[in-house]
Amino acid sequence: MSEQTFEVTGMTCGHCVMAVTQAISEVPGVAAVQVDLATGEAQVRGDNIDEKTVRAAVAEAGYGT
Amino acid sequence: MSEQTFEVTGMTCGHCVMAVTQAISEVPGVAAVQVDLATGEAQVRGDNIDEKTVRAAVAEAGYGT
Repeated sequence: MSEQTFEVTGMTCGHCVMAVTQAISEVPGVAAVQVDLATGEAQVRGDNIDEKTVRAAVAEAGYGT
Repeated sequence: MSEQTFEVTGMTCGHCVMAVTQAISEVPGVAAVQVDLATGEAQVRGDNIDEKTVRAAVAEAGYGT
């Protein structure tokens, strides 16, 4: 289990946080996601998580990394 | 059928627009809702719509009027 932190841009409200959390949660290997609106940080824990796949999931939800 | 316009505060993104639209849509008598993020205006059309009920629905969704 390892942890990675991503800078997520474009989140403006709690709905955005939920959308990003949901998107990252669906990435293979992800065990836990913690998204903070104020800092724009998404902390992702899990096994063998592909960083590119996380970024693609965030982009598909409409946000930047 | 009549139309009323409400000033909605606190909307910051498309998710907020959806949440407000959904909330107002559930008010009795409402036939159509158009919410604009840029202007913060919600245009509500329908029959015998109770203004207080619309404001309460918006408040419950977490926004101001």
